[in-house]
Amino acid sequence: MATAPSEGVVVVGAGLAGSLAALFLRRRGDDVTLMDLRSDPRAAAAVAASAATDGGLSLLANASKRSINLALSSRGLRALRKLGLADEVLRDAVIMRGRMIHAPNGRTELQPYGTTDEEVLNSVSREAINRFLLERLSAPPEAGEGRVELCFKHKVVGLGKDGSLTVLDTADGGAPARTVRPRFIIGADGSFSVVRRELSKLCRLSLRHEYIEHGYLELSIPARPAGGRYGNGFALEPHALHIWPRHDFMLIALPNRDGSFTGTLFASWTLLEQLEDPAVGLPFFREHFADALAVMPDLAQELTANPRGALATVRCDPWHAAGRVLLIGDAAHAVVPFYGQGMNAAFEDCLALDQALDEARHNVPKAIASFYTARKPACDALADLSLQNYVEMRSKTASRLFVLKNSLDAALHRWVPSWQPSLHTAVTFSPMPYHVAKARCEWQDSLLGTAFHVSCALVGIAGVALALKTSGASARLGAHA
Amino acid sequence: MATAPSEGVVVVGAGLAGSLAALFLRRRGDDVTLMDLRSDPRAAAAVAASAATDGGLSLLANASKRSINLALSSRGLRALRKLGLADEVLRDAVIMRGRMIHAPNGRTELQPYGTTDEEVLNSVSREAINRFLLERLSAPPEAGEGRVELCFKHKVVGLGKDGSLTVLDTADGGAPARTVRPRFIIGADGSFSVVRRELSKLCRLSLRHEYIEHGYLELSIPARPAGGRYGNGFALEPHALHIWPRHDFMLIALPNRDGSFTGTLFASWTLLEQLEDPAVGLPFFREHFADALAVMPDLAQELTANPRGALATVRCDPWHAAGRVLLIGDAAHAVVPFYGQGMNAAFEDCLALDQALDEARHNVPKAIASFYTARKPACDALADLSLQNYVEMRSKTASRLFVLKNSLDAALHRWVPSWQPSLHTAVTFSPMPYHVAKARCEWQDSLLGTAFHVSCALVGIAGVALALKTSGASARLGAHA
Repeated sequence: MATAPSEGVVVVGAGLAGSLAALFLRRRGDDVTLMDLRSDPRAAAAVAASAATDGGLSLLANASKRSINLALSSRGLRALRKLGLADEVLRDAVIMRGRMIHAPNGRTELQPYGTTDEEVLNSVSREAINRFLLERLSAPPEAGEGRVELCFKHKVVGLGKDGSLTVLDTADGGAPARTVRPRFIIGADGSFSVVRRELSKLCRLSLRHEYIEHGYLELSIPARPAGGRYGNGFALEPHALHIWPRHDFMLIALPNRDGSFTGTLFASWTLLEQLEDPAVGLPFFREHFADALAVMPDLAQELTANPRGALATVRCDPWHAAGRVLLIGDAAHAVVPFYGQGMNAAFEDCLALDQALDEARHNVPKAIASFYTARKPACDALADLSLQNYVEMRSKTASRLFVLKNSLDAALHRWVPSWQPSLHTAVTFSPMPYHVAKARCEWQDSLLGTAFHVSCALVGIAGVALALKTSGASARLGAHA
Repeated sequence: MATAPSEGVVVVGAGLAGSLAALFLRRRGDDVTLMDLRSDPRAAAAVAASAATDGGLSLLANASKRSINLALSSRGLRALRKLGLADEVLRDAVIMRGRMIHAPNGRTELQPYGTTDEEVLNSVSREAINRFLLERLSAPPEAGEGRVELCFKHKVVGLGKDGSLTVLDTADGGAPARTVRPRFIIGADGSFSVVRRELSKLCRLSLRHEYIEHGYLELSIPARPAGGRYGNGFALEPHALHIWPRHDFMLIALPNRDGSFTGTLFASWTLLEQLEDPAVGLPFFREHFADALAVMPDLAQELTANPRGALATVRCDPWHAAGRVLLIGDAAHAVVPFYGQGMNAAFEDCLALDQALDEARHNVPKAIASFYTARKPACDALADLSLQNYVEMRSKTASRLFVLKNSLDAALHRWVPSWQPSLHTAVTFSPMPYHVAKARCEWQDSLLGTAFHVSCALVGIAGVALALKTSGASARLGAHA
C-alpha cells in the first residue's frame, strides 16, 4: 500500500465477491484498497494461456480446486446490470435453457428451466469473470468515482479491537507489517477467511464449517473439430446443463465458449479414491456414463491425475463487528454448489450492501447492521436449499413424478400468477429472498399435499356413495324381483 | 526444546488435559515434550499468591476468563486414580454432597446427589490441579518412565502433511522456528486450538464452534472470621453446590478450601452488561438474590470490574489425521459448564487413550482410530446434555416435579438395580459412556411416561366400570323399588 487509507475502504480478497464489491464502492466515491494473498490472477492467466496448448489451462484451474465454470443466473446478473457490466459478461457466456437428463440407457430428455428468455442459466468461466472485474478496477476512475489500489501478495495478519488492520506485503521480503485503520473493512476472502478468523478474536463469532461426505472431480469433454451435429465443435447439446443422475453419485457438464464442456463427477470420497485406478474407473464409466465416456478421450489420465475437491457449507454469526468490519460471499456463507447460487449470492451481497449504504446515507455501522439483518436468514436458507438440492439433482430429476410436479406448478402459475412455478424458479430466477422463496414453496407444497388428500377423500366418499346407491338399487331391484 | 524428539511424543497445551495426558504417556515409557504458548502457570501463581492479600488472586484468575473452581466427579477421579494421584488431589478439595437450592424468599433446601460417599462432587481449584500436575511432571521419572521436557512460551506455527510440527520459541527473540517430527502429537490446546486449526489444513475437518446467548460473571463470597454457623469461616453451608435458580438467569456458588465461595452469575449478555451499573446491579441482587447479597461485600465493585466470560460448544470431526495427530479435551469437544463435566471428560480422554494404546499394543494409528470411535459419540452426547442442563439448573431444580421424579427414579433403582437413579447420576457418577447414559435415561423416561399414561387409562376405565356398576345397581334397585 502506498499510503494508509485511514478514510478509505479495504476489501480483503480479490475473488468474485471482493472485486465486485470494490467496483460498487468505487462507484460510490470511496477510495478502495483491494488486497489479496495470492498473486494477480491476470498474470497467472497469461502463464496458463501460453500453457493451454498442452492442456495446461484445465490442470492449472483444477490445481486451485475451484470449479472452472459457474452458472450465472438472474440474481448475479441484477448486480452486474446495476454497474452496466451484464452485457459484457454475457457476451462470453453460453446460455443453458434447461437440464439435459441422461438416462443410463443413453436416452436424453431436455427439461426447460422456464418459458422466457430470462429464465435461463449462463455458463461462465470463473477465471474470465474474475479477470474482467479486475480489469475494470484497473481502469481509470470516471468522474465522481473513488480511486482503487490493487495490492496482491498482501497478507492480513491481525485485526485490532478498534478496527485497525495489520497487513504484510509478502512480495517485499524485508518489509515489516503495517497497520492501517480504514473506515470500512470488507472480508471477501472465501471459505477459509482470515478476516473471519481475526474477527472471531474480537467478538463471539459462532462458526459452522461443515463438509459433506461427497467430493468432486473435474473431467474434460474437449471440443471436436468444428461442425458436427451441434456446431462449433460441441460434442453435446451446448445450450443445456447436462446431468447424469445416478442416485448415489452424479455427473454434470457445463458448456464452455470454446466448444468444450467441463464435466464434474460428484461422489463419495471412497468412490472418488477407487476411481483413481483406471482399471476401476473406465469400467465404472462404461457402466454408468457410456454416452459421456464416448466424448471423454482423456478420461483415464484425468481420473488418476486430477485433484479431488471438497464440498463444505460455512455458516457464521455474526458477520460483522466494531461497526466497520463485514464478511461477504463465501467468507460469510459458503454453500455446496448444487443450486449454482454461490457466485450469484455473493454478487447479490454486493448489490444489497450498495443499497444498504444508500438507505443508511453512507453511515457504515447502520448499513452493516441492516445488511446483516436482511442477508443472514436468506443465506442460511440458501445453505439448506443447496444441501437439499444435491439429493434432488442426483435422484429426483430422473423421476417422472418430479417432471409431473413441475408441470402442475407451471400450470397453476398460469392460472394464479402469484403461484411459484417451482422452488428452482423462485431461487434461480426471482429476486425473492432465498428464505422467502423456500417458505413460500414449502407452503405451496403443503397446500398441494392437502388438496391431493382432500381429492382422494372426496373420490373415496363419492365411490362409497355410488356403491351404496348401486347396492340400494340392487336391493330394491331384488325386492321387486 | 533441547533436541528434536523424532521418536518422542509432543503434547501441545499444558492445561489440565495436556498435563494429565503427558503423565499417562510418561508412565508408558514415552519421552514427552509438553509445550504451551503461555508462560509457566506455577511462576504466575507465585506472583498471584503474593498479590492475594489485596484480592489479587481472584482478579488474576478472572482475567484469564476461566472459571476458578471446578467440580471433580467420578470420571475424572477414575483417571487420576489410575496414576495414583486421586487422594492427593482430593486432599485439597471440598466435598459437595448435593445441590442447595435457594428460593427467592431465602428458603434453602438440600437435594442430595446420591446416597453413598462416592456420589458427591469435589470442588477443586483449576489452578491448583494444574500446578499439581505440572509439579508431578517436573519430578524425576521413576523406573521405566519416559523423560519429560516442559517448554513454555512455545508457539505452534505449522503442521506438515507428514505429521511434522513447526514450533517457535517465543521466549528466544531471534530464534527461527524449528521443525520436529514426533511419533505422536496430541493437541490439548483448548477451545481455540491451534493444532486443530492446523489440522484443518491437512484434512476435511468439520467444525462447529457455537456460543450460547448467555455469558457468565464470577463474583466472590469471601471467608468470614473463623467460626460461625458453618465453621472454618464459610458463610454458607460448605458441603453443597449452591444454586439460585431464577429461570432466565441463575447464580451458583462453589466452596473453596479457604472458607470462601466462588459465585458465578449466568445470564443473557444484555443483562450482564446492564449490571455493570451498580445502580442497576445492587437492586437486581436485592430483588433476586437477597441472601447471597448479604455475603457479598465486594459485589458493587465486582459487578463493574470483573470481566464477563463467553460460553461455547466445540464439535469437530474428525479429531485426528495422518495417524499421528490427535485432539483431546476442549480442543476436540469443549462444552458449556452446566454438567460440570468439561474437566472430567478431558481426564476421561486421557484414561481412554491410555487404554486404547494398551489394546493397540502401542500402535499409535490404531489406538487413535479406536479412541476416536469410542469417544466421539460420547462427547457429542455430553455437548447436548450440557446445553440441556442449563435449562434444568435454571428452572427444573426449583420445581416440586423435578424432586418427585428424582425420588421416583431413586425408588425404582432400589427395586431394579439396573434402573438409573437419574440422568445426573449416570452422567456424573457412573463410568457409562455419556451417549449410553443419555439413551438409557431417555428410554427410562419414555417408559415412565407410558406407564403413567397406562395408569391414567386404567384408573379411568376402572372409574367408568365402577360408575356403570353403580348405575346398574341403582337401576336394579329402582326396578325392585
